[in-house]
Amino acid sequence: MNAELECLPCLVRQAREAAIISTDDPSMQKNIMRRCLAYMSRTNLDRSPPEIAQGIGRIIKSMTGIEDPYRKVKSLHTAAALEMLPEMDRILAASADPFVAGLRLAIAGNIIDLGARGKVSDEDISGILNEAMHLPLYGTDPEELKTEIDRADSVLYLADNAGETVFDRKFLEQLPGEKITVAVRGAPAINDATLDDARAAGLDRVARLIDNGSGTPATVLSDCSEEFRQIFENTDLIIAKGQGNYESLSSSDANIYFLFRVKCDLVAEHSGFPVGSLVLLKPSGR
Amino acid sequence: MNAELECLPCLVRQAREAAIISTDDPSMQKNIMRRCLAYMSRTNLDRSPPEIAQGIGRIIKSMTGIEDPYRKVKSLHTAAALEMLPEMDRILAASADPFVAGLRLAIAGNIIDLGARGKVSDEDISGILNEAMHLPLYGTDPEELKTEIDRADSVLYLADNAGETVFDRKFLEQLPGEKITVAVRGAPAINDATLDDARAAGLDRVARLIDNGSGTPATVLSDCSEEFRQIFENTDLIIAKGQGNYESLSSSDANIYFLFRVKCDLVAEHSGFPVGSLVLLKPSGR
Repeated sequence: MNAELECLPCLVRQAREAAIISTDDPSMQKNIMRRCLAYMSRTNLDRSPPEIAQGIGRIIKSMTGIEDPYRKVKSLHTAAALEMLPEMDRILAASADPFVAGLRLAIAGNIIDLGARGKVSDEDISGILNEAMHLPLYGTDPEELKTEIDRADSVLYLADNAGETVFDRKFLEQLPGEKITVAVRGAPAINDATLDDARAAGLDRVARLIDNGSGTPATVLSDCSEEFRQIFENTDLIIAKGQGNYESLSSSDANIYFLFRVKCDLVAEHSGFPVGSLVLLKPSGR
Repeated sequence: MNAELECLPCLVRQAREAAIISTDDPSMQKNIMRRCLAYMSRTNLDRSPPEIAQGIGRIIKSMTGIEDPYRKVKSLHTAAALEMLPEMDRILAASADPFVAGLRLAIAGNIIDLGARGKVSDEDISGILNEAMHLPLYGTDPEELKTEIDRADSVLYLADNAGETVFDRKFLEQLPGEKITVAVRGAPAINDATLDDARAAGLDRVARLIDNGSGTPATVLSDCSEEFRQIFENTDLIIAKGQGNYESLSSSDANIYFLFRVKCDLVAEHSGFPVGSLVLLKPSGR
């Protein structure tokens, strides 16, 4: 899915937030914005939004020397989500269908996205459980995904944001862990989870954990490691979390189920589901 | 009031909306955005937001040749507001204090602002009467303004957006028209009112009507005509409508009452009043 002009204000907002979180120096912040605007004026816009976002992240890293500006925010989000584990367990234990309940938790957790949204509050995170249980789930029948997981020998789960990973963990606990590989980003990208974040969420306890070798807030295969690409190409089934993975893989012909919250008008239009909704989507014709 | 980095995403949004309203050609729209981003990467950011917005408007005009891309939208907004005249008259007739009721109408009408907001719906316009009567009015006591108007020999009223001008007219009808001069923009600037728009709203029937010689969506004196500057400097009292006039004149030491709706976090912080509120403000120390 290529960026549209309406992505540009959103990317400038992202750049500003990253600039502010990376340095307290107003003149440095201003210089960062000038460089990001100049980059956006010249760059190839016929790419997915996270590919353009990666260029912004690179500029800010090169100017500030800060490798992972969202490290502290990511830790706070992970800690807030970990505190909710007992409540998640109660929900799963009380559920007639723990697979669907876990799936709903994982999708609802995708609200912890600082790329698509400017700020994630404590209320956003504490509201996830309620949203997971009460919002309608759009798209493909969860039974289809369940059947495909049962049939598959290997499942690749593409994680998205730190904190959200705790909700992923509860879903992954409902799946046969021995056939699951979870992949996170290979380098910091906004608040996307890296290996450290995934371990802090306990994802390494429920599946094999790898990174994709890339610092794009998405899954752009050409930017991923050869090792990751091999796994991606040879896995029976892929479960891709979040808008970034959807934006970068929606044209792929791999066997992918997308799990995400719709967070902007463009993805609403592209996917056919309203902003805010929980979506499980296997694009038709695959 | 100078722009802050948080103005940049908003200015890019404005640029995109102006690009889309000016041309249907996607490659032209993209080229416009590239030029606007490049301009913003280089321009002096230590200016008020509407001064930066004027540069964007100039780029789009020069690339498309379209002098007034918002003409149709402005006419629709004016027509929608004119339809509400009978209801406005009922409100004023039923009011114990028509000065304050008219003032409230004029301020509530400032929601018709395509610079600060992406879209103004029919519901926004039809909701103005209700908001005018029920939202709290923050800032300076209206009695102070009334006393100053009574005392002044000359009052300069700086109008803002087309459509809003109809609400201004109902306020101006409560004032001594012979001492009032209403100034509008001298050239098209987003959906700000020009002479044509002001006449369509009937402003010429309630006061002397002039333009300021400038196509900035604000009042930047250095960009205004010599004639306007003379009037500005020699008038006893200035009433300035809207955020753009506030952003450009908040540091002026002229005798100005600002009337506006707060439409963004930055103006909320600068003025001290919450987003959405109706404000009558004479900055202290004048």
